[in-house]
Amino acid sequence: MNFLDKLKTASKNNNTLVCVGLDAEKSKLPNVLKSEKNPQLSFNREIIDATKDFVCAYKPNTAFYEAEGVRGIEALVQTISYVPDHIPVILDAKRGDIGNTAAQYARFVFDVCGADAVTLHCYLGRDSVSPFLDYSDRGLFLLVKTSNASAVEIQDLVLRDGRRLFEAVGSELQSWRSPTKAVIGAVVGATYPQDLRTVCQLLPAAPILVPGVGAQGGKIAEVLEAGGSSPLIINSSRGIIFASNGGDFAAKASQAAGELRAQINQSRN
Amino acid sequence: MNFLDKLKTASKNNNTLVCVGLDAEKSKLPNVLKSEKNPQLSFNREIIDATKDFVCAYKPNTAFYEAEGVRGIEALVQTISYVPDHIPVILDAKRGDIGNTAAQYARFVFDVCGADAVTLHCYLGRDSVSPFLDYSDRGLFLLVKTSNASAVEIQDLVLRDGRRLFEAVGSELQSWRSPTKAVIGAVVGATYPQDLRTVCQLLPAAPILVPGVGAQGGKIAEVLEAGGSSPLIINSSRGIIFASNGGDFAAKASQAAGELRAQINQSRN
Repeated sequence: MNFLDKLKTASKNNNTLVCVGLDAEKSKLPNVLKSEKNPQLSFNREIIDATKDFVCAYKPNTAFYEAEGVRGIEALVQTISYVPDHIPVILDAKRGDIGNTAAQYARFVFDVCGADAVTLHCYLGRDSVSPFLDYSDRGLFLLVKTSNASAVEIQDLVLRDGRRLFEAVGSELQSWRSPTKAVIGAVVGATYPQDLRTVCQLLPAAPILVPGVGAQGGKIAEVLEAGGSSPLIINSSRGIIFASNGGDFAAKASQAAGELRAQINQSRN
Repeated sequence: MNFLDKLKTASKNNNTLVCVGLDAEKSKLPNVLKSEKNPQLSFNREIIDATKDFVCAYKPNTAFYEAEGVRGIEALVQTISYVPDHIPVILDAKRGDIGNTAAQYARFVFDVCGADAVTLHCYLGRDSVSPFLDYSDRGLFLLVKTSNASAVEIQDLVLRDGRRLFEAVGSELQSWRSPTKAVIGAVVGATYPQDLRTVCQLLPAAPILVPGVGAQGGKIAEVLEAGGSSPLIINSSRGIIFASNGGDFAAKASQAAGELRAQINQSRN
């Protein structure tokens, strides 16, 4: 099954567009886990158990694991392996390097970690993405318009033909799509709903990973309206996994994930 | 001592602009090392011993270590720690993520790995680089014009005001420089010497990391002429570390590093 089919099946089975960002920042973990052998892994297992009926995907960000060195990488790999097989894992790694190096990152993401999809930079152009494209059953989410305030500094630069940079990036990605290669999708922040609409038009039917609801302030109704019929993956990290830092953290995460699903589904209908 | 002073001192002491890229791709390591407990680490130690009198910096690329999982991360951290204290280490990690995540990558690069400098993407704008800037004694090399063929697809897009994107990126970086923050430098591929000249003018006296000589085909005389008085760091990876894959790999690497230094110094005079 290719990535897009796996995503759509998971989304349908749980009737959800929610992706939970497994950004298990060690200093923010509940005190009750601090004596565990690997607190990040213990935390993620409980979060996964508590939220797996509400999500269409999980999205661990490599930064939070690399920051803990070897122990963090162990937690990352084992976390991904703990996710039920029918739920896709998008490794939020934001890699981007020249071809021979990109091939090694692809090994890390798909072979070492076993992720179903990955986030990537595209500043280096197609040959930097090519080794990832060769994993034909996987998904690639290229950074088009990010959710942060400074995103506009580079991404909104206006080109000679009147397009903004991120629009040109979206068009470029459209030319990279192929049925025999990995599925290409885009990352567009919920904080820029009008730009989300534009990107969905540039990349018809491509999956769009939308971070930035919750802690970053993106509005769900606006995201859904802008997304149209594109397969959306709406990510929340801190708003779900750190809903409580007490002994009830898993129960509160479950509740937060369920509420986000309900809120999204209300806007979908 | 800040990064730029450390770099200049190392460059002066060894009379060199050569940086050796420690891209210890496991499948390419000499057979004589394959029975070692950690072949990547053993390889790097011998390469460092053999080349340390010819270099101004070392540049391990994270991809080649992450591809080997936990064992690779161990090799990376221990490799950096093995580099003599007076030689700066530029971790070629090409990270780029929103602020709270970037702070975790900065921890990985500077605290876990102990690198002196790092390579970064700047598509996400200043707030994505800010956590790295706060490490005031370190160096940041932002990707401006990369060495690969596809670099032109995005980086050479022409803006409304006639500048190409990478020129706008260079100007933007100039506005981020501050004497109380980490030193900002740029990555410009040796394969685009005219663009190197432009970037050196946009970022006066900033250190410029120049990959792409050797295996990728950049010409040394053109690079030096274009670089003018900017502090250049000329990287070669495969051309030095894989000069031989026999039992003489370290001796051949030493010879290759010495020859590259001599070739560069001849063009400098």
